[in-house]
Amino acid sequence: MSATITAAVLVIGDEILSGRTKDKNIGYIADYLMQIGIDLCEVRIVPDIEAEIVASVNALRARYTYVFTTGGIGPTHDDITADSIARAFGVGISEHPRAIELLLTRIRPEDLNEARRRMARIPHGAELVENRVSTAPGFMIDNVIVMAGVPSIMQAMLDNVTPRLQTGAKMLLETIEAGQLPEGLYAADLSAIAEKYPNASIGSYPSFATGAFRNQIVVRSKDRGVLDAACADVRAMLARLTEARAKTQRT
Amino acid sequence: MSATITAAVLVIGDEILSGRTKDKNIGYIADYLMQIGIDLCEVRIVPDIEAEIVASVNALRARYTYVFTTGGIGPTHDDITADSIARAFGVGISEHPRAIELLLTRIRPEDLNEARRRMARIPHGAELVENRVSTAPGFMIDNVIVMAGVPSIMQAMLDNVTPRLQTGAKMLLETIEAGQLPEGLYAADLSAIAEKYPNASIGSYPSFATGAFRNQIVVRSKDRGVLDAACADVRAMLARLTEARAKTQRT
Repeated sequence: MSATITAAVLVIGDEILSGRTKDKNIGYIADYLMQIGIDLCEVRIVPDIEAEIVASVNALRARYTYVFTTGGIGPTHDDITADSIARAFGVGISEHPRAIELLLTRIRPEDLNEARRRMARIPHGAELVENRVSTAPGFMIDNVIVMAGVPSIMQAMLDNVTPRLQTGAKMLLETIEAGQLPEGLYAADLSAIAEKYPNASIGSYPSFATGAFRNQIVVRSKDRGVLDAACADVRAMLARLTEARAKTQRT
Repeated sequence: MSATITAAVLVIGDEILSGRTKDKNIGYIADYLMQIGIDLCEVRIVPDIEAEIVASVNALRARYTYVFTTGGIGPTHDDITADSIARAFGVGISEHPRAIELLLTRIRPEDLNEARRRMARIPHGAELVENRVSTAPGFMIDNVIVMAGVPSIMQAMLDNVTPRLQTGAKMLLETIEAGQLPEGLYAADLSAIAEKYPNASIGSYPSFATGAFRNQIVVRSKDRGVLDAACADVRAMLARLTEARAKTQRT
């Protein structure tokens, strides 16, 4: 059985915390990592403050196989991610020749001013993570992958870096509709099923989207046999309770 | 001048980390807190694991004026937030008479089984945070506000608890369109403006939604005079650069 590969996401940006920008990257990365067999274990959103970025990166990189950051690698004064990462690792930072080369595929040499050159400043020891959308690269240093905040660019970077990552067994997931059956009616039985299958993770999720509650039960496991057995138990339990409930309502 | 009131959000739930559910609460709470004069400084998303919840709650409540949690207060086995909060505070937890009363406004006495009674278990010393949507209450203990994960219920709880919260000066925000003007062209000037106004926070945000880059500059300050002066400088700078660019392109 392959090892468990874990990850954290660190979203860097005042604009998310102020509500001005609605994050679209967390959900995308969560889906993506699950597909390739990396377990996303934690997410943090921090402001554009170097000390906050440094503290979070150091806490997360010590704990998880990978840390993916988004945001703060553009040309403006509030783009402080690259410098913060260099600080977190205690390494220098300077212009990377290949990064300059990449910028020059989009920017004329006479337009490559100091601000734009900032986008080529890469911490020493990092490898570039290229993208075709903006050409300004992200980078990977040790187990930390630094990506843009603009979703289309971030997604291109994620595709670029993925072949370099270790991946583990993929989490398998099945969603079972519980419909209008109330959570409170099946909670005890579901708990018993959850205890029976320690290698599965079982969750119950109500939603209230259309003016009425609707419940879904999600079973997750890396073991297909465990997943199938747990799902069969959940379905049998729901069928039994639905029938019992119908009988009660008829009488 | 009123004090600065800070907050963190702690999202609790495997379903967000697995990508299965896309969080809709962070952006809503960010907007909401900004409107009432509370500065959101950090967000964390953690799994349904007691030790993780306890560690995050204790780290965040020591650091910020308020901590808002979402998720994990339903009747099923994976709803462990209330117990985890009690553990974090080192207090007991038991059925709260008013919480039972609230549940009974929706649930018939004979249907109030053990699982449903779990929703009335409240850490000792907490005050209830009621909601009309589901009637199952959240609670506030010291500076930690525990809310549901279902957006409509969470929103009702936020409305309910707000009158009990201290609030500070409201952050004022203005968005200035930079259009197609490249960030790299105005970065140096924008940096100079940011340095001139230490009581404003100035950010530059590219988007790439419609196949072309479009930039916006956001100026934030709690001081109306500072905000207006900084915005005037940004607008003058953009007008100057746009004109200069048009001239270059004509020649």
